[in-house]
Amino acid sequence: MDPVERVRLHAREDGQDVEREDALAVEEPLELRIRSAENAAVARFVTTMRTPGHDEDLAAGLFFAEGVLEQREDLLALERPSDPRIEPELRANALIATLSKAAFARAEGLQRSTVMGSACGVCGRTVIGRVLPEGTPRIQSTLRVDAELLYALPARLREQQSVFARTGGLHAAGLFDAQGRLLAAREDIGRHNAVDKLVGARWLAGELPLRECVLMVSGRAGFEIVQKATFAGIPIMASVSAPSSLAVELAEAAGITLVGFLRERRFNVYAHGARVLG
Amino acid sequence: MDPVERVRLHAREDGQDVEREDALAVEEPLELRIRSAENAAVARFVTTMRTPGHDEDLAAGLFFAEGVLEQREDLLALERPSDPRIEPELRANALIATLSKAAFARAEGLQRSTVMGSACGVCGRTVIGRVLPEGTPRIQSTLRVDAELLYALPARLREQQSVFARTGGLHAAGLFDAQGRLLAAREDIGRHNAVDKLVGARWLAGELPLRECVLMVSGRAGFEIVQKATFAGIPIMASVSAPSSLAVELAEAAGITLVGFLRERRFNVYAHGARVLG
Repeated sequence: MDPVERVRLHAREDGQDVEREDALAVEEPLELRIRSAENAAVARFVTTMRTPGHDEDLAAGLFFAEGVLEQREDLLALERPSDPRIEPELRANALIATLSKAAFARAEGLQRSTVMGSACGVCGRTVIGRVLPEGTPRIQSTLRVDAELLYALPARLREQQSVFARTGGLHAAGLFDAQGRLLAAREDIGRHNAVDKLVGARWLAGELPLRECVLMVSGRAGFEIVQKATFAGIPIMASVSAPSSLAVELAEAAGITLVGFLRERRFNVYAHGARVLG
Repeated sequence: MDPVERVRLHAREDGQDVEREDALAVEEPLELRIRSAENAAVARFVTTMRTPGHDEDLAAGLFFAEGVLEQREDLLALERPSDPRIEPELRANALIATLSKAAFARAEGLQRSTVMGSACGVCGRTVIGRVLPEGTPRIQSTLRVDAELLYALPARLREQQSVFARTGGLHAAGLFDAQGRLLAAREDIGRHNAVDKLVGARWLAGELPLRECVLMVSGRAGFEIVQKATFAGIPIMASVSAPSSLAVELAEAAGITLVGFLRERRFNVYAHGARVLG
């Protein structure tokens, strides 16, 4: 499915009314369903709005980010519904994951509402503690990059962003190697989805952790984006825009080099700057 | 709590390394808990990452957008946890909503995983049908605005965006009246949260539907943003960036005038342009 849809619209430019054609980023729901290897019943897991394309990568990345998938054996199959009563259009918006018994139990656990005692609560420390339970080692990597290499990344990511360039409506995430070569790029209407697609593709290929890679995102770097980088073992991440306070705290705790406002020939380093040379 | 946190960082500018102070948008979790008017037990509803400030508005807006709150009587109380064993820092990141029996049942229904038959699926039509069940009337409004009025909105919203200007890390949403006067503005690290805070404040004040208002958002207009405008009864919405395909389809079906790429003296109209004059 084309990630772009063409529409006719009215543009108003300083009083002038012009009819013209424009491109929109396609947004469609993707329904993820789960099935245990031991049981034929299918349950809904989540419906997420996404730009069609690389759906299997997105599904794997999302299950991985949620902690449902731990090892490759946790995912036995990832398929479109086969029931012939379902229209093709609907089949294209659903994926069924067949999970190991343990992974299925974790997926179900995420969906259960929990009655709680009143003396508990959350804060930045709590959520960082959930991503990095006590004793989790910091990300170890010998990767070092030059400032010159970082300066080059936004343009290399943009080269892949045909659709983004045309519509301004898609976010991009790119994975680069130690020489600054683009290994893979993914686009999506959702910032988080673009990263899930990228990490999910590597997870499916059995290539995690990504200890020698740089992650670059087109949008802001919030807590959840850094969380995904943490789980994927990525030592350096950069964004063209601002990180949040908690993104910086998590990067600090996880051992991730966090670069922000990477534009033209400048950037800020918010955490673990020792990996940036020159 | 200040929505901005000051940090010291290293900036690299064309080979020069400068240490300086910068501001980051604060991101912290907010845990929403629910309690039925008929029962003392408290359950977790959801934890969302947000920028502190206007938490009650955010909570009300989020419960409203999820369909938990239908009428004012559905929300009996919205309070911080009072248990003295909870640290103040944690209390600031939690809210307990006391709900009517019907609203509590709807909240619980959202969290239950459903075993499904295999012959169902989702597509754009399905999700639009969930927002606008058959027979739902289109948004009715006599509101008309001049192109000149629209041109002025981005600057008026930016005037309120002190933090955004300082950090580049916050999204803003503003509500304007028929004369283009700013009625209220809200900021958040999350695009959706900014709109939930805005709509939630109006819901708490008993002012929905917002039939004579214009909603303006600083980011993109995706399906879920237009969905929130639909529930709030807002006839005209504008964004500085691109809408998605499904946002345009929903605006068309709901009767919302959807304006995009509103920058300087130009904009595009994607749906129901008849409300824009001049």
